[in-house]
Amino acid sequence: MLIHNVFFWLKPETTAGEIADFEAGLASLLADSGVRAGYYGPPGATAPRPVVETTYSYGLVLIFDDAAAEARYQDAPVHVKFLQDHKPKFEKVVVYDVQGA
Amino acid sequence: MLIHNVFFWLKPETTAGEIADFEAGLASLLADSGVRAGYYGPPGATAPRPVVETTYSYGLVLIFDDAAAEARYQDAPVHVKFLQDHKPKFEKVVVYDVQGA
Repeated sequence: MLIHNVFFWLKPETTAGEIADFEAGLASLLADSGVRAGYYGPPGATAPRPVVETTYSYGLVLIFDDAAAEARYQDAPVHVKFLQDHKPKFEKVVVYDVQGA
Repeated sequence: MLIHNVFFWLKPETTAGEIADFEAGLASLLADSGVRAGYYGPPGATAPRPVVETTYSYGLVLIFDDAAAEARYQDAPVHVKFLQDHKPKFEKVVVYDVQGA
């Protein structure tokens, strides 16, 4: 499995309406045919610890069969549209692609 | 769902044998009764992009029902043993706990 983890920091001036649009955009990504399971949301209410990062706005976790499926997703219309619609809101993005057993 | 994402940077002097032990430790965590699904592994072979972080050694993604289940896992014997056995190998750890819909 290839676990595609994306963490988004939205620009501070992003409005509530724009955030709602962005959430809808995240939801649209889960419909990609290569996505076996997907999750997204803001930082959770776990116990504060020095190692726990809480400054990001949203995380997205998509499970693909393999790196080839993730590569197809990068070029899929739903992902291209997501970037067109929402990239201007991004202050910072960090991606961790984990090769699971 | 609470998606518990952990990224580990192991110390450069960690030996192959110690890495194998660490991998077995990661595998042991998936047996926690609160874990609904779990994945772990090294950085995958996705296309290099400026946003893709590839300097970490291993990622671990555990799916829990909620933050309370993740809190129980923190104190579970399997997790306490994992930290006892492997924390000395850690150079850096970053955790992202995502509150999924």
